This record gives sequence, structure tokens and C-alpha cells, in this order.
Amino acid sequence: MSELRWHPFHQDWVITATHRQDRTFFPPDDYCPLCPTKAGGFPTEAPRETYDVVVLENKFPSLKTPPTDPAVVGGELLLVRPSVGVCEVVCYTSDHDATIADLPARQIKKLVRVWRDRYIDLKSRPGVEYVFIFENKGREIGVTLTHPHGQIYAYPYVPQVIQTRHQAERTHLGMHGRTLAADWLRDEAEDGRRIVFDYKNWTAVVPFFARYPFEVHLVPKADTPDLESMNDEMLNGLAEGLKELTARYDKLFSFSLPYVMSIFQYSAEHTRLIVEFTPPYRTKDKLKYLAGSEAGCGAFINDTLPEETAAQLRAL
Amino acid sequence: MSELRWHPFHQDWVITATHRQDRTFFPPDDYCPLCPTKAGGFPTEAPRETYDVVVLENKFPSLKTPPTDPAVVGGELLLVRPSVGVCEVVCYTSDHDATIADLPARQIKKLVRVWRDRYIDLKSRPGVEYVFIFENKGREIGVTLTHPHGQIYAYPYVPQVIQTRHQAERTHLGMHGRTLAADWLRDEAEDGRRIVFDYKNWTAVVPFFARYPFEVHLVPKADTPDLESMNDEMLNGLAEGLKELTARYDKLFSFSLPYVMSIFQYSAEHTRLIVEFTPPYRTKDKLKYLAGSEAGCGAFINDTLPEETAAQLRAL
Repeated sequence: MSELRWHPFHQDWVITATHRQDRTFFPPDDYCPLCPTKAGGFPTEAPRETYDVVVLENKFPSLKTPPTDPAVVGGELLLVRPSVGVCEVVCYTSDHDATIADLPARQIKKLVRVWRDRYIDLKSRPGVEYVFIFENKGREIGVTLTHPHGQIYAYPYVPQVIQTRHQAERTHLGMHGRTLAADWLRDEAEDGRRIVFDYKNWTAVVPFFARYPFEVHLVPKADTPDLESMNDEMLNGLAEGLKELTARYDKLFSFSLPYVMSIFQYSAEHTRLIVEFTPPYRTKDKLKYLAGSEAGCGAFINDTLPEETAAQLRAL
Repeated sequence: MSELRWHPFHQDWVITATHRQDRTFFPPDDYCPLCPTKAGGFPTEAPRETYDVVVLENKFPSLKTPPTDPAVVGGELLLVRPSVGVCEVVCYTSDHDATIADLPARQIKKLVRVWRDRYIDLKSRPGVEYVFIFENKGREIGVTLTHPHGQIYAYPYVPQVIQTRHQAERTHLGMHGRTLAADWLRDEAEDGRRIVFDYKNWTAVVPFFARYPFEVHLVPKADTPDLESMNDEMLNGLAEGLKELTARYDKLFSFSLPYVMSIFQYSAEHTRLIVEFTPPYRTKDKLKYLAGSEAGCGAFINDTLPEETAAQLRAL
């Protein structure tokens, strides 16, 4: 069963997908379903001896086309709709133990182009309203397959948080004639204390308004709303920025740092693509949890000073 | 340093409070700062030999009155304001090892009245815009003091999620002449499959639109917007409902179930108080993590069917 249910208090859809409860949970390394199929070995989801970057349909998708019929009909207020959409898995490399930081720059450049291709394809599918490329990295945030991979969700609606974001960006463009990202990045550059590194056409910055300790945004220096609008130079700059940032992250506490990576993009002039990294650690051995204030009210408490975490990341 | 920083993309404040990084982290049971001070023992925050229910100022507050001066001044777009407000800790009992489920009903009735008193006091303080009573229970969600306690935050602003909620409730009342909670509860009662228990003037329900597995809302059957508007019968019903629900939770997997409890209330006619429980477990040994889709887009995926989790909780 997979369907969308309307949350009338949050004015947002909840994806209810019961078939996912049995998804693959920490298989032994020899049985990684995302590795290439080894000669004589068990058949994986990538039936090749090796691969570069591979995109697979998620075997346990939250959203699918065509969707299964809704199993439950709600009351007058309890709205339900099919959870049409697409969930894909992007394997970054055939090397089971690598991370983005380990990959050669040319491999990350390929990955960025695969993201671009998938974005362009998925956003044009009927019923797709928002395409979200992301990576969950690390057991600490619930990852159950350790093979280096990210995911893509093509939602049949624009989530409430994204709507708020776009409304803010549209209003800003209307009022100032410049994008919100442009004005924010100008302020960050003038201040300078929160810049982690500045790489050709990209800036890595701990935002003034960071919600997580060690949160970093990778921001292009031009008003490129999505991967589609980026030229080769911009795409290569992103790849190099990703490598630089993840390498610094791994040096921070001397272990491969878990994170959620979110690529916020939308094909409209009011917005600018931003790649947001939110690691779950607040110190070397303490996690940042989303409890009462955050989970209940969305009110984030950041126990670190963005000026200081940026300086730490800059010094590495 | 403690201040509010404006997140221009989320249109929300972020509480930046660096002095909290050193807060008490799993002290040995003999040194619990929330226990009564034992004769000859070390001085705790509750300098009495015993107590009933005690309210303390949070020693590591995210919000305080008067606030410290903002340490950082942002740019044109990087708005900052003092993090004025109040953070309190409510100790439910002097018994270090108890939980709500263990407490006698009369003790929970006292607790509910303490919440009511604190709510009425805090909401009237200058600068306070939203009073949030909550409990984080369990290591799994980051609790570092095991003594049974909850917290109260008195925010100097209405968080974005709460604004969305109230706008939805105001619109519903305007359109239908009935509160959103009333119409939702009517639909739940007519369907019946998601009701966990029905106790005098309160209903416990896994909402049709549950975002977490085993999420349960305790909802009063009358349009009481806050604890202040509840009579003795309502307050006692809440206490009994809290005991009943937490007892069922503890039976579910045969261990004391962690949860976040959020009391959403506001002194206005469009709303109805709701006590929301969101446990972090999706099965006996698997946690529900808030990763990419949830953390990035706020798009929740519930891997369980509310009709089934309600039946499980009902059968206990």
C-alpha cells in the first residue's frame, strides 16, 4: 500500500507506504545489492561486472508510477490521493567502500552530470511537481546500505517547506529585483567570517542562520536555478566543491562524517540552486537530535556559533 | 551567547545558543541534578529532602530574560534579535526511576495542574508569543538526564510550523463554523479504525495522517483551546489518558517506549489543544530517522498503516 494522506494541520501530504518496512537492512558486505554482479556471485541490482555511475529504480519506493490503488478512503476531511512519482537510487561508484571524498574529481564530474540528466528527465514526467536529489550518509541517520549512493525523489506535489522557500524567494525578487540567494551571498562575502572556501564559481559557507552545527551550503555565484541551467564550468566547479567539502568534513573529527545532502533546485527565475549539507554531529562524540523544539515546533536550536564552525572547517 | 537569527529561506528564527554545548551529559545516578538533595549528599537543583512536582529554571536555557546582548550583528539581510524567553524544567516526581506510566493517577493530575499554572503564568509574560510544553523521553532522541521530566519553552515568536497550523485552523473555522479539530475528530469517530481508546472527555487516536509509526494524539472532545480553559473534569481526563497511553506504549515492545510529547495549545477560539506523542521506533528494534525527505523537504514517509498501528495499540 502506498498513498498520500493530507495532514490538515500542517497543510502538507504524508507519504504512507507500508511495503517499505521490509526493506534491505545492513546486508553483509558480500551481499551488497548495489555492487556490480561478480562472476559466479549472487545477482545484484547492477548486473554488470563493473560500472561507472548507475541509476536504479528504488526497490522499496515511497512513490511509484503507476501507483497502487489507494487502500483506504478517508472521511470528508481525510483526503487521500495516489502516491504517483519516482524514487531512484544513484550509485556513485562500483567501489563498495568509497565516499565522495575518496572519488577522483572526474568521477564526481560524471556524477554531477548524471544528476543533471535525471533532473531534466524526471521534472518533465507527467504528475511530477518537485524533483529532490539527496544523499543520506551514515548509520547515525538511518542509512541501511553502506555502498556509496544517493537518492532522487520525484514528488507529485510541492512540499510545504519548499513552498515557503519559493514564496520567500519570489517575494524577495519582486521587492528587490535580485534573488534572495544573491543578496544573502553578498552579505556573507562582505562579512567573510562564515566562508569555508571560495572555489571559482562556487562558495561554501556556514550560513549566518545555520540550523545544524557544521551545516554548510554550496552556493553558485550566478543565478542558476537548477542543474539544467549550468554550463560545464559550473558543473565542474560543483564537483570540485563537493570533493573539497567532504574531504574537510572527514578531517574534522578524523572519521568519515555522516550527513544529509539536499539539493534544492527548481526551474524558475526566482530561485538559485543550493546544495545543503547537514551533518548530525555537534561534537566529535555527540549527536544533534531533533527533539521537542525542533520536531514539535520546527524551532531549531544551534548550540554552535556559525562563525566558529566555519573557522574550524576553514583551518583544516 | 544566545540570540535569534533569521532564516530568510524558511521565514523562521533559528535559536543560536552556544553556552548549551557544555550541558550536563548523563551524570551518574547518584549525581542526578533533578533529584531531591539527600542529607549529606551533593546539592542538587531541588534543595529539599523530597518534592511532589517541581519546576526549575533550565540551567542551560536556549531563551532567557533578560537576554544577553547579541554577539554578532548581521548584514542587511542577516537579521538578529535577542533570544528573550523562558526555558523551564518540570520534574514529574522525586522518584528518579519513574515514568508517567508508573505514577499514580493523582500524581499525574498534579502534574497537569502544574502545566496549567505554568502556561497561564508564562503566556502573560512580556515578549512571550508561544508557550510550548513538551517532553523528550529516551536516549534514542537525545535525552541526557534520565530523571522523569519535561520542559517548557516560552518563545518570543510564533514558529513557522505553528503559524501554518493556526492559519489552517482559522481558515477552517471561517469556512465551516466549526474547529478543524472538531471536524477531524468527528471523521475519526465515524471511521473508528484508528481510535486507540476513548476515555470520558478525551480520545486517543492514531491520526489518519500520522507522520510517525505509533504516533498518537490525545484530543479533548470539546473546543478547549488551552489548559486554562479546561475544568477539573477535563484536566483529570487528560491525566488518566496520559497514564493509559504511556502504559500501552510500554507494553507495545516490552520496554519503556521513548517519545517526544508535544502539547499544542494557544489561547484563541479557532484552535483546540492537542497532545501529540511521536515515538521514534518503527519496529521493536528499528528507529524511524528523519533524513533526506523529512529533514530536507519536510516530506514525511510513514512505513506503517495507521489503521494497523492503532489496532496494535488498542489490543494491548
